[in-house]
Amino acid sequence: MGLDKDVNFVIYFKLRMLAEIITIGDEILIGQIVDTNSAWMAQKLNLAGIRVKQITSISDDKQHILEALAEAEKRADIILITGGLGPTKDDITKNTLREYFNCDWRFDEGVLEDVTRIFSKYGRSVTDVNRLQAQVPDCCTTIRNSNGTAPAMWFEMRNKVFVAMPGVPFEMKGIMKKDVIPMLSAKFKTPHILHQTVLTQGIGESNLAELISNWEDNLPPNFKLAYLPAFGAVRLRLSAIGEDKEHLKALSDKKINELKPIIADHIYGYEEDTLEEIIGKLLREKGLTLSTAESFTGGAVSSAITTVSGSSSYYMGSVISYSNKIKMDELGVKESDLINFGAVSQQVAEQMAIGVNKKFSTDCSIATTGIAGPTGGSEAKPVGTAWIAIATPKGVVSQKFSFGEQRQAIIQRAALTALNMLRKQLING
Amino acid sequence: MGLDKDVNFVIYFKLRMLAEIITIGDEILIGQIVDTNSAWMAQKLNLAGIRVKQITSISDDKQHILEALAEAEKRADIILITGGLGPTKDDITKNTLREYFNCDWRFDEGVLEDVTRIFSKYGRSVTDVNRLQAQVPDCCTTIRNSNGTAPAMWFEMRNKVFVAMPGVPFEMKGIMKKDVIPMLSAKFKTPHILHQTVLTQGIGESNLAELISNWEDNLPPNFKLAYLPAFGAVRLRLSAIGEDKEHLKALSDKKINELKPIIADHIYGYEEDTLEEIIGKLLREKGLTLSTAESFTGGAVSSAITTVSGSSSYYMGSVISYSNKIKMDELGVKESDLINFGAVSQQVAEQMAIGVNKKFSTDCSIATTGIAGPTGGSEAKPVGTAWIAIATPKGVVSQKFSFGEQRQAIIQRAALTALNMLRKQLING
Repeated sequence: MGLDKDVNFVIYFKLRMLAEIITIGDEILIGQIVDTNSAWMAQKLNLAGIRVKQITSISDDKQHILEALAEAEKRADIILITGGLGPTKDDITKNTLREYFNCDWRFDEGVLEDVTRIFSKYGRSVTDVNRLQAQVPDCCTTIRNSNGTAPAMWFEMRNKVFVAMPGVPFEMKGIMKKDVIPMLSAKFKTPHILHQTVLTQGIGESNLAELISNWEDNLPPNFKLAYLPAFGAVRLRLSAIGEDKEHLKALSDKKINELKPIIADHIYGYEEDTLEEIIGKLLREKGLTLSTAESFTGGAVSSAITTVSGSSSYYMGSVISYSNKIKMDELGVKESDLINFGAVSQQVAEQMAIGVNKKFSTDCSIATTGIAGPTGGSEAKPVGTAWIAIATPKGVVSQKFSFGEQRQAIIQRAALTALNMLRKQLING
Repeated sequence: MGLDKDVNFVIYFKLRMLAEIITIGDEILIGQIVDTNSAWMAQKLNLAGIRVKQITSISDDKQHILEALAEAEKRADIILITGGLGPTKDDITKNTLREYFNCDWRFDEGVLEDVTRIFSKYGRSVTDVNRLQAQVPDCCTTIRNSNGTAPAMWFEMRNKVFVAMPGVPFEMKGIMKKDVIPMLSAKFKTPHILHQTVLTQGIGESNLAELISNWEDNLPPNFKLAYLPAFGAVRLRLSAIGEDKEHLKALSDKKINELKPIIADHIYGYEEDTLEEIIGKLLREKGLTLSTAESFTGGAVSSAITTVSGSSSYYMGSVISYSNKIKMDELGVKESDLINFGAVSQQVAEQMAIGVNKKFSTDCSIATTGIAGPTGGSEAKPVGTAWIAIATPKGVVSQKFSFGEQRQAIIQRAALTALNMLRKQLING
């Protein structure tokens, strides 16, 4: 399961081009922001067959930048730099690179056009400071930035590539996707890397690993599997590396097709799918409407459903019934069942699901009742105990769960589980 | 507003002890995880008067670790290392440090006790591999890890301090808070640093800066203000550095007291407060109950309220009325008002608030109606337009807002704004 499990893959992996990432600026060093840029860049580089050797965060200090560049150049083939490209005096990356490569300034008319266009969009005229954005070292190729005024700069020196990009995440991401990754792939003729992701829910990482160990052990040497757990779901990412794109795709498809029947019950989607989008799609296809009745999840299920734009076409609404009185008055839960079985019971969950379906005249519903903690647990029903019920035109199903001990994790896991239960009912219909 | 605004503070700042952080392991370099550890550590070090000069992420490769240690030792006084301390063969940090400092192994009985205790808790016996956790370089002081089996190691060499800690966030955080930060403060006699945080909502960073520019300009040279914006709220962190703790506290309190009247309308709390906890506290104190009626926020307000443990004592529930029919049937919104003024209108928001209060027999309620987008906007009511109404025993208040263009940001901002509106009604009562 670790990165280094498959020795053959690692050998292949180690042959790849090496990159380093240098982030320039104080925000990361004072802990004001978390460096999400580097993880994103590392992911894209790895997906493109380029290995990241080191990530370095330094402040905008000229001497320190020069040293970091020299050290990175010793180790790596590709050096990606973010930050310090703004128009103010704090932003010294551009001039430091010019000094590092010992070259002159050049004025880039294309960049000035971009700056002028962006400023005129906001009805502002270009100042001298802004014009300076178009001044670049004459030893670089500029890469236009469609989301901002600072261009990216591509340097090829001593058989190495240096790329400086703005640190604003959506500017950097746009430049990486549109230009830098394709340019690096072309220049270094990186091997083809293929990734396919299978999304599972309702089974832990170690149980999953046990279930598929035979399949995993028999993967070809140029294949590798990664387990990526988050919020009670586990993504399985199958990576394959090779020269022949067509062959790689065919082999990867074959492996995924072998995997599917082994864990059919746990797969909810592929690649970038989300449960709330899958459910939305299924409901639209079938022309069905949805409502929810939430107790301990307190709106988490409803929040997830309504993150999908256009959800108002199938999602009608919810009754969040934190109190027993609302469970009775609004959802028709029987007082005797609340007394005899407790609020966290199969009877109550199912009555909530049926009640909200009827109340809002919907076709399907989700109901949750449980103990989110940290208080409210008992010997018989410890914190994390929950019942979830799903009502569809076919009838009502319900299931008991134990979602752990930590309040936020319990709520998140329950919400995902509830969505997946609905998905299963919709596809089995 | 930038880090370097106050030159005097910076000079003081630059005199401080320098630290570097080295993270060891592949997860960050392949982009599988975002390095949140380093930001957390950087924050705690800065708060303790120690400046972070560089953050470096490298893989578990012995030669590369040795080089990174040597480079960091040249630049910094304190080198903090995380990761690679587990019991498997991939985890080479411990042996690499032993080689770096050229010392022998020693067996630490205290660590073995910890390992044995943790294993017996899970009913497992200690294997030889686990026993190795207690083997440490004889030139280090071990720091016990109360949350795991790998101890931290403190090395003092050539007037520098090196600390190696496990990479598991809650283990590292426990060790940093309990031992490493106090030990560093004692060893380096760092100046006293005091931080006070004021939490604001409903005003942007630049408007806030304008409003308090006079106050900010007149801060003493050893004071610095940071603007930390997130989710439509801005935290103001006032930092002061000096030798005399008592004096610093008195001066900082004075400055905060001067700030308060200038932005009284926008302050909702201090330090680690959250709006949902403040509201919970106010409702409990006043013996009031709460319900919500959400349209476009889809459960986000309710989710926030129910993250607070014990919220079931004052929060009764919600009607999430994505459809107009539910607004009418459940909340008593008049059909004529929906037709004449639209679902996103003052009339509808106020009727929703009154309706849910009545329905659930609560004392207070929050109602939201708006356009989360990306579709559904119009010239008169573009995406982001919203009405929020608050009902309390004093009556109903409502307000119109524009929350921007991006669906998730609109929903988050609206939820925070709604909570703050309720807070204002509760304290003015």
